Amino acid sequence: MNDTTKIPAYRTFEDFEQGAEIDLGSREVSAEEIVEFASEFDPQPMHLNEESGRASLLGGLAASGWHTNAIFMRMMCDAFLLSSSSQGSPGIETLKWKKPVMAGDILSGRSTVIAKRELKSRPELGMVTLRHELRNQHGEVVLQLQNPIMFRKRRDRDDA
Amino acid sequence: MNDTTKIPAYRTFEDFEQGAEIDLGSREVSAEEIVEFASEFDPQPMHLNEESGRASLLGGLAASGWHTNAIFMRMMCDAFLLSSSSQGSPGIETLKWKKPVMAGDILSGRSTVIAKRELKSRPELGMVTLRHELRNQHGEVVLQLQNPIMFRKRRDRDDA
Repeated sequence: MNDTTKIPAYRTFEDFEQGAEIDLGSREVSAEEIVEFASEFDPQPMHLNEESGRASLLGGLAASGWHTNAIFMRMMCDAFLLSSSSQGSPGIETLKWKKPVMAGDILSGRSTVIAKRELKSRPELGMVTLRHELRNQHGEVVLQLQNPIMFRKRRDRDDA
Repeated sequence: MNDTTKIPAYRTFEDFEQGAEIDLGSREVSAEEIVEFASEFDPQPMHLNEESGRASLLGGLAASGWHTNAIFMRMMCDAFLLSSSSQGSPGIETLKWKKPVMAGDILSGRSTVIAKRELKSRPELGMVTLRHELRNQHGEVVLQLQNPIMFRKRRDRDDA
């Protein structure tokens, strides 16, 4: 199921229906960007070169989990967040790095609406809880996380 | 409490005592790096320019939460992870972005050992669960997270 054909180009709180799935598209992860991210934020040897990666539990040059998270965020931005009334997120409820992301992997993603609620303290906003997952080209889940995101409601937008 | 004076320069599973606190040092977060990270991984307007930040719930140019996470990871690497037998982490148990990280903020961090256990399936490894927190220059907690990290035991190291 992919709901991209039946929702508006710009999403507000009202447009997230419980159970709806959103396609996050796909993208390749290069060795170069793995090393670049790791050099700045996670310079553990298994994220910096193939040989150290092979000697580690990861089995080869693998992306920092924090890099995988950041790639996921960009995929979510491009898929729907930048065309939405998102007001940010208070955090992550749970996150699992299920498999290493190796150099050359092609990741594809999906976000599923698992809950939504009004915010009593902020009547112009609502909270949507999403379960996200990224898979590699073998169909294996590499990242699974769940987090709540705040969205403005439509009635507060000038053009609504 | 800061245990950096009483632990070895290279930490294995055995060196993480329940309740021990580890100082992660401090670092400033510049507007330039906020925009650079956001441009690549989280190009929402409030992370790209001051004006959009002011118009958002964040109140000014603020770092992507995923950037704050990555900065935390680098601080943890520099403080102890790169001088340890770390074998990576299966994920994050919980993570809260408690306050926005604004351009110019100076973050300081601390990791606390809250649990440790042997791994029956991998007798050469142990799992250490840490609670981490970053505060800004006003003493406010900006990031709070908890995650388990796998470490090799000392008896498996050649130089032990």
